[in-house]
Amino acid sequence: SRSLNLAVIPGDGIGQEVVAQGLKVLSAVLPQDVKLETKEYDFGAKRYHATGETLTDADVDALKKHDAILLGAIGDPSVPSGVLERGFLLKLRFLFDHHVNLRPSKLLPGVATPLAGQPEIDFIVVREGTEGPYTGNGGTIRKGTPHEVATEVSVNTAFGVERVVRDAFARAQARPRKKLALIHKNNVLAFAGHLWTNIFNKVAEEFPDVTTEYMHVDAATIYLVTQPERFDVIVTDNLFGDIITDLAAAVSGGIGVAASGNINPSGEFPSMFEPVHGSAPDIAGQGKADPSATILSVALLLRHLGFETQAARIEDAVSADLAERGTTTRTTDEIGDALAARVSG
Amino acid sequence: SRSLNLAVIPGDGIGQEVVAQGLKVLSAVLPQDVKLETKEYDFGAKRYHATGETLTDADVDALKKHDAILLGAIGDPSVPSGVLERGFLLKLRFLFDHHVNLRPSKLLPGVATPLAGQPEIDFIVVREGTEGPYTGNGGTIRKGTPHEVATEVSVNTAFGVERVVRDAFARAQARPRKKLALIHKNNVLAFAGHLWTNIFNKVAEEFPDVTTEYMHVDAATIYLVTQPERFDVIVTDNLFGDIITDLAAAVSGGIGVAASGNINPSGEFPSMFEPVHGSAPDIAGQGKADPSATILSVALLLRHLGFETQAARIEDAVSADLAERGTTTRTTDEIGDALAARVSG
Ligand SMILES: CC(C)[C@H](C(=O)O)[C@@H](O)C(=O)O
Ligand SMILES: CC(C)[C@H](C(=O)O)[C@@H](O)C(=O)O
Repeated sequence: SRSLNLAVIPGDGIGQEVVAQGLKVLSAVLPQDVKLETKEYDFGAKRYHATGETLTDADVDALKKHDAILLGAIGDPSVPSGVLERGFLLKLRFLFDHHVNLRPSKLLPGVATPLAGQPEIDFIVVREGTEGPYTGNGGTIRKGTPHEVATEVSVNTAFGVERVVRDAFARAQARPRKKLALIHKNNVLAFAGHLWTNIFNKVAEEFPDVTTEYMHVDAATIYLVTQPERFDVIVTDNLFGDIITDLAAAVSGGIGVAASGNINPSGEFPSMFEPVHGSAPDIAGQGKADPSATILSVALLLRHLGFETQAARIEDAVSADLAERGTTTRTTDEIGDALAARVSG
Repeated sequence: SRSLNLAVIPGDGIGQEVVAQGLKVLSAVLPQDVKLETKEYDFGAKRYHATGETLTDADVDALKKHDAILLGAIGDPSVPSGVLERGFLLKLRFLFDHHVNLRPSKLLPGVATPLAGQPEIDFIVVREGTEGPYTGNGGTIRKGTPHEVATEVSVNTAFGVERVVRDAFARAQARPRKKLALIHKNNVLAFAGHLWTNIFNKVAEEFPDVTTEYMHVDAATIYLVTQPERFDVIVTDNLFGDIITDLAAAVSGGIGVAASGNINPSGEFPSMFEPVHGSAPDIAGQGKADPSATILSVALLLRHLGFETQAARIEDAVSADLAERGTTTRTTDEIGDALAARVSG
């Protein structure tokens, strides 16, 4: 009999509420013969205040033993900006080599978008997750003086770029439209831009059936609001990916339904799945958060572990639920219940 | 009697056509007693192919003598990506210390936006123009091998950040809503983020009547499409400014009407005014380009040189023209003629 051994990290703010719904739907969708084990971890602001820790070596060792990680959200105004982000979230992405940061954008029927004319949006962004300006390289001299100089170093390696570009080509090839866009800023960031463009063009030769294009990141933001239907698969660097996936989420139904996976394709370390949204402390504990993004992240988790049928069933359930939702306001719990009922139906 | 001595750089593609209309409107709006002198320069792809030059020392010396520079667009597919951008445009921004890159976004009545519900958009972005990831710092080792490493270094100085932050506060204070948002990514780019946030908060104390907020760049892209009316003045770094101003242009009527100024506030070197759009080689020479962005850049140029009445007259003319334009298709020339008639009326 199969088993699924998950690390569950509810985290801060609405993280608790949405993860509970994610687990509810997961239990409902899993076949009877799959043994689900979950272990909850208390990372986040509370633990940080109590112990000063964000993620210890022992924590990392414990997390390594799981098949995958489900994360709600980390972050609280009581903790200085960046401490939990870098000390927990980015630390884990780097330690577990989550180099494929997968973020699908699909505007589902009946879902509101800020764009006029309800365009057809259905693309995925493959964001590099372990390099670029996210490496923490750089420094400060003469801090706090009128002569302070602060640098940030974007580090890009052929190894790191090629593996994520290759992953994106394979994903593009598996989709009906077979289109892949590289987004960068190679006219200004010439060193990194050359590396990305060169590798992209080289790998493209191995995927002759994939149609490619290159686009500067600034131009990409225009197309994301004027012609989002043109995108199929996008591959891009860590920072550009961060920026355009928030925009992509906004135009395709909002961060209430935007899922993401921090994937280690080799399986050497567990992959981590999380909604794109943050901990939203302003609405925490009120049952107002939409758990759909977390539930869709559970679908990505299932697909990653080979449960394709169950992943698709969750996605269909969310799609049907959103189409019927209309202007009804339901609580976090009610949405979770409705989706659990649909997937087990 | 007053005089106005302009360097005119039509550049590539539609640059020629739109600059001609900019000059037409400029001549029409200037008071009789102002002597307008213009000198045209041939920078761009043609010169590059003929001589291999993008901008020589002698060119720079010649440009220095002007009161301001009007630029159409530089760039052509026949020139490798980045050569003209870095060899001409960025070189000039850096040499002439254009540290205030000013980009207003205003959705004028009757103008189409990709956003539903026709929101009220009226903000300006003050983009830093001489630092950040644009400095060309960085490098490549083992180029072309599987062990290539490419870096890009974002350089940020207290001097450079403080002057642009101060400029933005002054602009915010002069506007009715008096709001200023700092956009950065200080939870990840901690070195540069700390410098920017720290200086922003320090300068804020001198402007107690300005309401401030901080926003991560990824979140800013969401707000730009869901609540663009919340913005009044934005200050941000060179790269984030590049990205969000294209998005800002897209939501507030498109790059056909997006103007910009590369400003040296001290006046030590001439400032340069240009539409946000590029050379659009696909429609060049067909009279299809909208010259409004260039004409609005002429307004920014006039305001910078103290011709406030004339600047406002151009802006009112463009506004009235857009409101009446409807779905009529007019040529580049016809739009220029209509605006010239309005401003001289
Ligand atoms: C919280 C932050 C560090 C993170 C990022 O920048 O990657 C978030 O914005 C995201 O997109 O997952
Ligand atoms: C052409 C390019 C170098 C330039 C930039 O990145 O600044 C352009 O995108 C702009 O915004 O003026």
